[in-house]
Amino acid sequence: MIKIAVMGYGVVGSGTVEVFYKNLKSIEQKIGDDIDIKYILDLRDFSDSPYSEKFIKDFDIILNDSEVKIVAEVIGGLDPAYRYVKSLLQNGKSVVTSNKELVAEKGAELLKIAREKNVNFFFEASVGGGIPIIRPLHHCLSANEIDEIAGILNGTTNYILTKMAEEGTDFSDALSQAQALGYAERDPSADINGADACRKICILASLAFGKHVYPKNVHTEGITAVSTEDVQYCKDFGGAIKLVAWARKEEEKVAVMVCPAFISESSQLSTVNDVYNAILVRGDATGDVIFYGKGAGKLPTASAVVSDIIIAAKMTGTSKSLYWEDSSELFTVDYKSLSNKFYVRLVCSDKSKVLSEAEKCWGNLNILRRNDELPNETAFVTESVNEEKFAADCRSISEYGEIKNIIRVLDY
Amino acid sequence: MIKIAVMGYGVVGSGTVEVFYKNLKSIEQKIGDDIDIKYILDLRDFSDSPYSEKFIKDFDIILNDSEVKIVAEVIGGLDPAYRYVKSLLQNGKSVVTSNKELVAEKGAELLKIAREKNVNFFFEASVGGGIPIIRPLHHCLSANEIDEIAGILNGTTNYILTKMAEEGTDFSDALSQAQALGYAERDPSADINGADACRKICILASLAFGKHVYPKNVHTEGITAVSTEDVQYCKDFGGAIKLVAWARKEEEKVAVMVCPAFISESSQLSTVNDVYNAILVRGDATGDVIFYGKGAGKLPTASAVVSDIIIAAKMTGTSKSLYWEDSSELFTVDYKSLSNKFYVRLVCSDKSKVLSEAEKCWGNLNILRRNDELPNETAFVTESVNEEKFAADCRSISEYGEIKNIIRVLDY
Repeated sequence: MIKIAVMGYGVVGSGTVEVFYKNLKSIEQKIGDDIDIKYILDLRDFSDSPYSEKFIKDFDIILNDSEVKIVAEVIGGLDPAYRYVKSLLQNGKSVVTSNKELVAEKGAELLKIAREKNVNFFFEASVGGGIPIIRPLHHCLSANEIDEIAGILNGTTNYILTKMAEEGTDFSDALSQAQALGYAERDPSADINGADACRKICILASLAFGKHVYPKNVHTEGITAVSTEDVQYCKDFGGAIKLVAWARKEEEKVAVMVCPAFISESSQLSTVNDVYNAILVRGDATGDVIFYGKGAGKLPTASAVVSDIIIAAKMTGTSKSLYWEDSSELFTVDYKSLSNKFYVRLVCSDKSKVLSEAEKCWGNLNILRRNDELPNETAFVTESVNEEKFAADCRSISEYGEIKNIIRVLDY
Repeated sequence: MIKIAVMGYGVVGSGTVEVFYKNLKSIEQKIGDDIDIKYILDLRDFSDSPYSEKFIKDFDIILNDSEVKIVAEVIGGLDPAYRYVKSLLQNGKSVVTSNKELVAEKGAELLKIAREKNVNFFFEASVGGGIPIIRPLHHCLSANEIDEIAGILNGTTNYILTKMAEEGTDFSDALSQAQALGYAERDPSADINGADACRKICILASLAFGKHVYPKNVHTEGITAVSTEDVQYCKDFGGAIKLVAWARKEEEKVAVMVCPAFISESSQLSTVNDVYNAILVRGDATGDVIFYGKGAGKLPTASAVVSDIIIAAKMTGTSKSLYWEDSSELFTVDYKSLSNKFYVRLVCSDKSKVLSEAEKCWGNLNILRRNDELPNETAFVTESVNEEKFAADCRSISEYGEIKNIIRVLDY
């Protein structure tokens, strides 16, 4: 009989307990042993719960119970999750988690402790909810060099951008709708400013490229500046605006960024709508592989947690290859050294002057149109240009017109 | 040092050797041991190959070499692959294979021998080429009840259908193009008659539902009857024609079918084009998850074979849960008892008569239009109707008009 504990009884925690007991018979078949939840840690009172006798409020009970071999951490956030998980691993218990912030900030350190203690630290649920991605990526890696990963990793922002594209809703109304439907939190900042997607691409990039990519070293832009005008111009471009988190190998380093982007309609990513997520993995042998599904939600995320529990229960000893090393900030390329195509929207008194200056800087421009275009408005897509040069060019172009928005054009 | 053998040095076999040696260092890191290919079995002469000293023509050398622990079978077909694989497993060697025919016809028997001998029989490469699907499905299963699987599992037919939809090419020209590009074999029958897709859905259904689904019990229709007219009507319907292989749980049984189908453009499957494959897995906890990528090709398939080799090398003892039992034909539901919506195209002298008869049989009809529609031609989509009743109705409708084609309308 294997005893486990679940820390946190919020949305994912209660889902984990639900999925666990619903599938207990098949789980035990897969493990080849009996298994049960011994403790559920939560500071709140759940005396009415059918599992009321399992609830505890004192973390040390789990830490010091040698019978508990596997702990699911579904509290979220860094404090106290980081402290708890670190102590558990140091005490020789395997931990599975859905906590993307924890893995993105502390993954290398926790994986190292897990390896030293010969236990497992698994985190399938931290990216893509119920989409199997961590483990397939890990398996892909064995016979592939991963060149690039690009994902729509945040369901809230994808819902907002879908509403804006399909119904012409403006950003703030689309956000309100997302909140009303429970897709966005009351404080939606981590979603709309890109921080959530950033954590997730850090986890994927760390695994794919073998060294920790820290969120603070990733250039991250959210979607708050995306306007209905941009959405309309993107339709003329022939695509959709998506919040894309991407990471690419650059010799011994990695380039990583989170930004709203024009995605051509010929890309599978352009048709990923509503709260769905998709992750494109570009391997040298497999080519492009895409994983698609609901990136959040109680049961999808819980099912990923339970899958990890099962694998942790089946494995003896630590997974040697589901691992990455720590790194310095030198591991990430300064985004200013990268090159991209850019969409630029501006207002100006003399269009032909602005466009001729822009052509001097950025090569042939793909001029875009929209209905209801204002007489003094223009928008175009540049050729590929270095980020730093582009920013400097923008300052000089600003003499001739007011740049209203800039969005990268990515080719996935 | 782990010694392995590769049987078959065709497209996938030579790719397997290539991917193996290209990634040898990272493979050995993952396994935590040295590994090498000791033998390559092929009846042809490869004395110019850099691996010429490894080539053998006598299978018994591999069978009787106790140093060889893992064998990759990439010969294809049932004979001699079945005989070889069976003997290898019985002799206590693990086998990994890309051979869909072998797994679809003999999977239950071979998995049983593998379990008895405590070795592994893996087949990630048999479905979806380089798309990780067998193992993610297997992991999904632990915390999910799989309700349904639907896939575009054959790249050749998907290429043909894409050409027909995008360029108005007719079936035989599109097939010729596929052959010229090497996407279709000189004898394309197993692709275009659905047999290849049938084998693959049998493997996925067997794994998902726990009992062997045999190809002979699966109602299988190919795409040879699909015409440019059908493609045009499908555009008016708002979707695309795809060859869909699907399996659905029906209480203690499974319903499985391979058929061309109208797929609404709101479905992710409708935008899977060219030689790409996609597999939708509908789980009770995860919801819909889709796996997308190149379903064939030398390196994608080889990378899946090599991934399996790595896992076989890391595992001690057989995988207990990557398994299904044998079954009788009673495990599959007779397709005649199922219900579906149908697209019907017919020519007739009296349209209103035909349509009123059709409405009596099949409820409200969604009448479709196309450019260049002939005066005596009509096409529509029915409501959901039992397959057997529909077939009988078609016979009576035929008194009023000639039915030119029938295609199911599936909702994925």
